[in-house]
Amino acid sequence: MNFRMIRRILGILLIIEAIFMIPPFLISVYYGQQDMYAFLLSILFTGITGFTMYKLKVKNTTIKVRDALAIATFGWLIISFFGALPFVFSRSIPSLVDAFFETVSGFTTTGATLVNHLEDMPKSILFWRSFTHWIGGMGILVFTVAFLPAMGVGSFQIFKAESPGPTADRLVPRIKDSAKLLYMTYFSFTIVQIIFLLFGKMSLFEAVVYTFGTVGTGGFATEATSIAAYDSVYIHIVIAIFMFLSGINYSLYYSLFKGKWRDVVKNQEFKLYLGIIFVSTILITVNLMTTIYHDIGTAFKDAFFQVNAIITTTGYAIADFDLWPAFSKAVLFMLMFVGGCAGSTAGGIKVIRILTLLKLIKREIQRIFHPRAQIAIKNGENIIQNETASSITSFCALYFLIFILSIVIVSLDGFDLETTISAVATTLGNVGPGFNQVGPMRTFSVFSAFSKITFSILMLLGRLELFTMIAIFSPEAWKKQA
Amino acid sequence: MNFRMIRRILGILLIIEAIFMIPPFLISVYYGQQDMYAFLLSILFTGITGFTMYKLKVKNTTIKVRDALAIATFGWLIISFFGALPFVFSRSIPSLVDAFFETVSGFTTTGATLVNHLEDMPKSILFWRSFTHWIGGMGILVFTVAFLPAMGVGSFQIFKAESPGPTADRLVPRIKDSAKLLYMTYFSFTIVQIIFLLFGKMSLFEAVVYTFGTVGTGGFATEATSIAAYDSVYIHIVIAIFMFLSGINYSLYYSLFKGKWRDVVKNQEFKLYLGIIFVSTILITVNLMTTIYHDIGTAFKDAFFQVNAIITTTGYAIADFDLWPAFSKAVLFMLMFVGGCAGSTAGGIKVIRILTLLKLIKREIQRIFHPRAQIAIKNGENIIQNETASSITSFCALYFLIFILSIVIVSLDGFDLETTISAVATTLGNVGPGFNQVGPMRTFSVFSAFSKITFSILMLLGRLELFTMIAIFSPEAWKKQA
Repeated sequence: MNFRMIRRILGILLIIEAIFMIPPFLISVYYGQQDMYAFLLSILFTGITGFTMYKLKVKNTTIKVRDALAIATFGWLIISFFGALPFVFSRSIPSLVDAFFETVSGFTTTGATLVNHLEDMPKSILFWRSFTHWIGGMGILVFTVAFLPAMGVGSFQIFKAESPGPTADRLVPRIKDSAKLLYMTYFSFTIVQIIFLLFGKMSLFEAVVYTFGTVGTGGFATEATSIAAYDSVYIHIVIAIFMFLSGINYSLYYSLFKGKWRDVVKNQEFKLYLGIIFVSTILITVNLMTTIYHDIGTAFKDAFFQVNAIITTTGYAIADFDLWPAFSKAVLFMLMFVGGCAGSTAGGIKVIRILTLLKLIKREIQRIFHPRAQIAIKNGENIIQNETASSITSFCALYFLIFILSIVIVSLDGFDLETTISAVATTLGNVGPGFNQVGPMRTFSVFSAFSKITFSILMLLGRLELFTMIAIFSPEAWKKQA
Repeated sequence: MNFRMIRRILGILLIIEAIFMIPPFLISVYYGQQDMYAFLLSILFTGITGFTMYKLKVKNTTIKVRDALAIATFGWLIISFFGALPFVFSRSIPSLVDAFFETVSGFTTTGATLVNHLEDMPKSILFWRSFTHWIGGMGILVFTVAFLPAMGVGSFQIFKAESPGPTADRLVPRIKDSAKLLYMTYFSFTIVQIIFLLFGKMSLFEAVVYTFGTVGTGGFATEATSIAAYDSVYIHIVIAIFMFLSGINYSLYYSLFKGKWRDVVKNQEFKLYLGIIFVSTILITVNLMTTIYHDIGTAFKDAFFQVNAIITTTGYAIADFDLWPAFSKAVLFMLMFVGGCAGSTAGGIKVIRILTLLKLIKREIQRIFHPRAQIAIKNGENIIQNETASSITSFCALYFLIFILSIVIVSLDGFDLETTISAVATTLGNVGPGFNQVGPMRTFSVFSAFSKITFSILMLLGRLELFTMIAIFSPEAWKKQA
């Protein structure tokens, strides 16, 4: 490991984080709230630590795979730790474990919360809490699209399988070039959604906070009842549509921008994403209409909103879907695993992996009839390599393994299976709310500190797509250079 | 499709089934119970249908892959339908859907029941019900080991990955030869366990019935409270040990018989099977001791029994484990997916697949550090081919997919997630009992007819290892010969 270089980069990361703490600090000054000292202290603490780490002399600047893994894993841990300081210093969330959970939930754009009394929180703290979503949503793009491949790590998992893309190696220059464009899309969405929400008579503060939660597919709210607190169909629809847009592969917007309509229409992942949303919305609407709803318009709107909220792993709620009939809840439960498209800010297994799995299963059936045939699997016009297929199936198997093992660990707290299973699925998938004790109108505060740490790890595992974080703990990462 | 040949073989199957109905018929005559007419009618109905189908002229006797798939799928459906007749005719289970569920549960060695009042059942019916376990347990061996490979189908999934075995093609003659030995093992276990249970002062009838349930890894009992009805530590331990033995790959007994101790000791699947049982038993014992149990001996015995009952997918109970703390239940829930070893009568994903998955995940992590390296995965001394690895991961992905989709379907009945999820996991894994409404002291009678049919399909899917049954419904199976 090139510890000096790792320390240096983590130092830069902390300096950037300290800079990101300035807006909430200014808000606290503007509102004249006590917590300005909490932010000032956090900025100094984070900034000075970062600067000290950055200033150390570095002789060897080469970064190998193992170093990149360490930077990603420890980077996310360290920004979550320092990001938790404002909560602790302001005593909004006095426990460090709780504050860490909340910050991890923010940066990983999960949106699972421990806070029972959001109304008691100062505005600057609420802003920082949602700002972590926005930074985290941007962070995925930084780390997985621009940062890691540039270091030769080759974006382990998803980009190899990404539809319009060539092999991982050839992606590097292209992604580097298009990173700016991706950021421009992200910023544009942010600004456009804020404007749309302002039209819905939201205050500027709330419009900004809810936009952070939407475009980052996070889900933190300023009210305990989430979006249900806003009795406005317009706001519901605006947020639903922006959640939907945020779950789409950003490179499709690039194609759209370049006028390549065909690439978008022909994109198989996008079509499956649309299909899943369409079918799920119809199923839930029918189920709601035959049970607890009487107005088809409201049933459809609520179904469409919740389907998008869960599949994009945002986790906002305009209804307490924990009180919905079992069938609707089961559909939402399924969507927690699906997640959004690759190259979006959404979490979960991701639609492209589900698509590849379906193709692999289809091939397996064909092989029964033609045992000796070499059957290639295509994604659009590109053949999926054996290595890619293997890495996707291994990802899914590992996802399921972690899911089952975590259920066992969290069940030590003694909650019912519905609470435990949905809490694990929702944190691993970076969704946010689950069912029963962790339903959309409740919080994760019921769990023990041990489980809260487990959930924090699950959120990080989900965001770093499992392998990065697990690989760093393999002997391979630590053995002496050959 | 060679329909004439398929019909002929299904005819033979029905004739064999009619012969299998003779023992319960004799029991009904012996006990002078009314249901002798039910069995007589069933035997005639099944036998004559079988004979009529068998007698049709067949010109072309070649059996292709598609025909073999049809024989396996429709064979299991047809024997379940005719096997349900004694229940219907005797009015023990008047509804055909219910009787079909119970028979599928029997033949697939699941052991999930719909019968709420077992004490009202005539002995002949109880015998037939458990006899289906024994036939089904034998049936797997017939179909997947001896029958299908002999027809060139090549035992799709599991045998390719089986530890001491070479490629599928070379397996064929070996399996054919050793089929007799496998049956001898099965018969020996049956006789030895009956003797052991007789020593425990069980009646001959009960000893036979519980042995059928154990060696077939089924789980049907003669009492609503399962093995808990027997207040005998000796009986508990005998059944626990025979469940454990029945979950081991039968070919290991062959090695043992030939004095090849090393093959057994070195077998990785066996070691993992032992390891999972050991760790699970310890975890549950500790959990039980710190909560509801006060005697470590009883805690250990109950933990060991239930771990073996679930991992071997037998499903017997000596305690109402639904009342156990959440952690113990979660461990058992995990074991529902694991299942026994390949080449045993147990269901589930099977230990060999879990083992291969773990190796694939490990390779994926190594690939992060050495992206261009060709890393071979070995099972013992044999390299696992890409095709095998792909078929195993596809199996697991399909298993998970069916699991999640079935939760959605069954949730239409509106039960809590714990009931729904465990009911799906336990039927797909051929285990038997689940939690809450389908806990070990309850039955599946609460579900709608629609769900009962869904569960029947899940049990068949689990027993036929998913692909056989799904492939037969693919267009490939029905398109005109090229």
